[in-house]
Amino acid sequence: MKQVAVFGYGTVGSGVVEVIDRNSAVIEKRVGEKLNVKYILDLRDFPGDPNESKVVHDINVILDDPEVEIVCETMGGNEPAFTYSKNALLKGKSVCTSNKELVANHGPELLKLAKENNCNYLFEASVGGGIPVIRTINEALTAEIIDGITGILNGTTNYILTKMDREGAKFDDVLKQAQDLGYAEKNPEADVEGYDACRKIAILSSLMTGHYVHFEDIYTEGITKITPEDFKYAKALNCTIKLLAMSKENNGSYYAMVAPFLIGKDTALYNVNDVFNAVFVHSNMLDDSMYYGRGAGKLATASAVVGDVIEAAKNTGKNLPIFWDDTKVNLLGIGEVNRSFLVRVKEAECDKKEISAAFGEVTYVTDAGVAGEIGFVTPMMKEKDFEAKLNNLSGVIGRIRLDK
Amino acid sequence: MKQVAVFGYGTVGSGVVEVIDRNSAVIEKRVGEKLNVKYILDLRDFPGDPNESKVVHDINVILDDPEVEIVCETMGGNEPAFTYSKNALLKGKSVCTSNKELVANHGPELLKLAKENNCNYLFEASVGGGIPVIRTINEALTAEIIDGITGILNGTTNYILTKMDREGAKFDDVLKQAQDLGYAEKNPEADVEGYDACRKIAILSSLMTGHYVHFEDIYTEGITKITPEDFKYAKALNCTIKLLAMSKENNGSYYAMVAPFLIGKDTALYNVNDVFNAVFVHSNMLDDSMYYGRGAGKLATASAVVGDVIEAAKNTGKNLPIFWDDTKVNLLGIGEVNRSFLVRVKEAECDKKEISAAFGEVTYVTDAGVAGEIGFVTPMMKEKDFEAKLNNLSGVIGRIRLDK
Repeated sequence: MKQVAVFGYGTVGSGVVEVIDRNSAVIEKRVGEKLNVKYILDLRDFPGDPNESKVVHDINVILDDPEVEIVCETMGGNEPAFTYSKNALLKGKSVCTSNKELVANHGPELLKLAKENNCNYLFEASVGGGIPVIRTINEALTAEIIDGITGILNGTTNYILTKMDREGAKFDDVLKQAQDLGYAEKNPEADVEGYDACRKIAILSSLMTGHYVHFEDIYTEGITKITPEDFKYAKALNCTIKLLAMSKENNGSYYAMVAPFLIGKDTALYNVNDVFNAVFVHSNMLDDSMYYGRGAGKLATASAVVGDVIEAAKNTGKNLPIFWDDTKVNLLGIGEVNRSFLVRVKEAECDKKEISAAFGEVTYVTDAGVAGEIGFVTPMMKEKDFEAKLNNLSGVIGRIRLDK
Repeated sequence: MKQVAVFGYGTVGSGVVEVIDRNSAVIEKRVGEKLNVKYILDLRDFPGDPNESKVVHDINVILDDPEVEIVCETMGGNEPAFTYSKNALLKGKSVCTSNKELVANHGPELLKLAKENNCNYLFEASVGGGIPVIRTINEALTAEIIDGITGILNGTTNYILTKMDREGAKFDDVLKQAQDLGYAEKNPEADVEGYDACRKIAILSSLMTGHYVHFEDIYTEGITKITPEDFKYAKALNCTIKLLAMSKENNGSYYAMVAPFLIGKDTALYNVNDVFNAVFVHSNMLDDSMYYGRGAGKLATASAVVGDVIEAAKNTGKNLPIFWDDTKVNLLGIGEVNRSFLVRVKEAECDKKEISAAFGEVTYVTDAGVAGEIGFVTPMMKEKDFEAKLNNLSGVIGRIRLDK
């Protein structure tokens, strides 16, 4: 019997207990022995809960119990999760987490600690919920050099953008609906401003490079300014708008960013709708591959945590190498990256000669059906050159990047 | 240094040598030491080839060399690949293969032999080329009970169907083009009749159930009878036609089949086009997930073989459990499965009263634009009941299953 403790009995933590219970037979087959949740650490009591008797308030009960080999950290946030995770690893207990904040902030330090203590720090559930993208990068695409990752990594914003696309609805209205349905938090900032996706692409970028990509260095733009008119242009271009989190090799350097992008109907990410997530990977032998599924939700995320628990249980006393050291990656500024843009300008102020002089041969979007304005798509150009020229252009309403 | 031998220096075998050479640094980092191809077994000589000196014609040179820990079996077919694989495993050498024929036929026996000899029989490349679907099932979705797998598992037929959809072209014409481009074999039977997809879904079904699903038990229907008119109906229904290989739990039993299906625009498999493959998995905690990429091609397939070599090299002397025993699964006949169908009938012989009496409330497809005929979609019904009623209906031109 392998004894497990769960730190935090919230949505994901209670999901972990449920998955271990409901799929106990298949888990036992894979581990070779039974998994048992011995303790649940939480500040609260849970009177009447079937696992009430497992709840403890003092972490030392768990840390000092040598029977507990594996801890699931499903508390979220930096502290006390960071201190608790360190203390568990120092005791040689593997930690399996869904905490993207902590992994993005302190991944290399916790991985080092796991290595020094012959145990594991595993974090499949921190990115893409139940989609096994971390394991794919670390254990499946091992013969590959990955040079690009593009993900739809946030279910809330993808739900909102899908609804806006299908219904022509406004951002604020759809956000309100999403909040009523429980798909968006009351304080939606972390999702709609792209901060959540930013942590996740920081983790994936670190695994891609083998070094430390800090989330604070990643250019991040949310979806709050996307309008129904933007979607009219998207439709006219046979596109939709998705919040993409990307990290790419660019002439020997890397850049990373989170922003809304126009993507075409014929792309694999186009049909990733509602709360689904997907991670598109480019590597030098396999070329394109994509991993798709539920990026959030109690059982999907918990299943990823339990998958890590099984991995840890099968490898007691053995550190599984994860290549992510603490050397900081100096990201290329996104101003240096070439791309093309959709620009919307007021019809009354639109001067096609001025536009040609600034951006070269643009393509006008004539059938978007938005009164009083004109749209055009620029050729590929450096983002910093584009921005400089856009600042000098009259009547600009907005711009969106194209991913192609 | 880990010494490797390659059995068969054809497309995939030479790809394996190329991947190990080109990505040697990243592979060395992951294995912890260098991988070296010491021998290449082939009947032919390769004068002038950079690896000419590694070519041997006698398998015993490899079997008797204790330095060789891992063998890549990229010969294809049953014999001599089966005998060679057995002999390598008996010597404690792990075998990594792309040979779907052999895995589908003798998987359980070879896995047992690997276990008995403390080595591994790994076959990621046998299904979905470079898409890491085998590792996902065996090592990532370990906390899940998988109850359904639906795949687009053959690149040739997917290329043909994509072209037919986009261009309104005829099967024979597109097949000819595909042969000219090298996407289809001169003898295309294994692809277009669904036999290749059948072997692959047999392997996935075996891993899903943990037991032995024999490919000969799987109902298999190819795409040779699909016409441009079928695609007109597909468009009218907001669908396309894909060759699906599926294996599903159905009231405690399993059924498996390969056949062309109408699938809707809003499904994740809809945008899997050209030579790309994808595997859609349903499991009890994660719900839906999908794995997408190049299902064939020299380097993509070779990369999957080398991924297995890395896994074997990291686990010398240790058998990694793969749950696939030799207990035969008695598949449910597909006649017992409920689904709905598109039926095309000659307009002159169409009797709507007769149709209602046979199939109940059908939906007529009025805007397919095919002269002289009428199409309708049946409600969900058991396939055997449908077939019995279809046999008695006047003027039937054809039928296609819907997947929904």
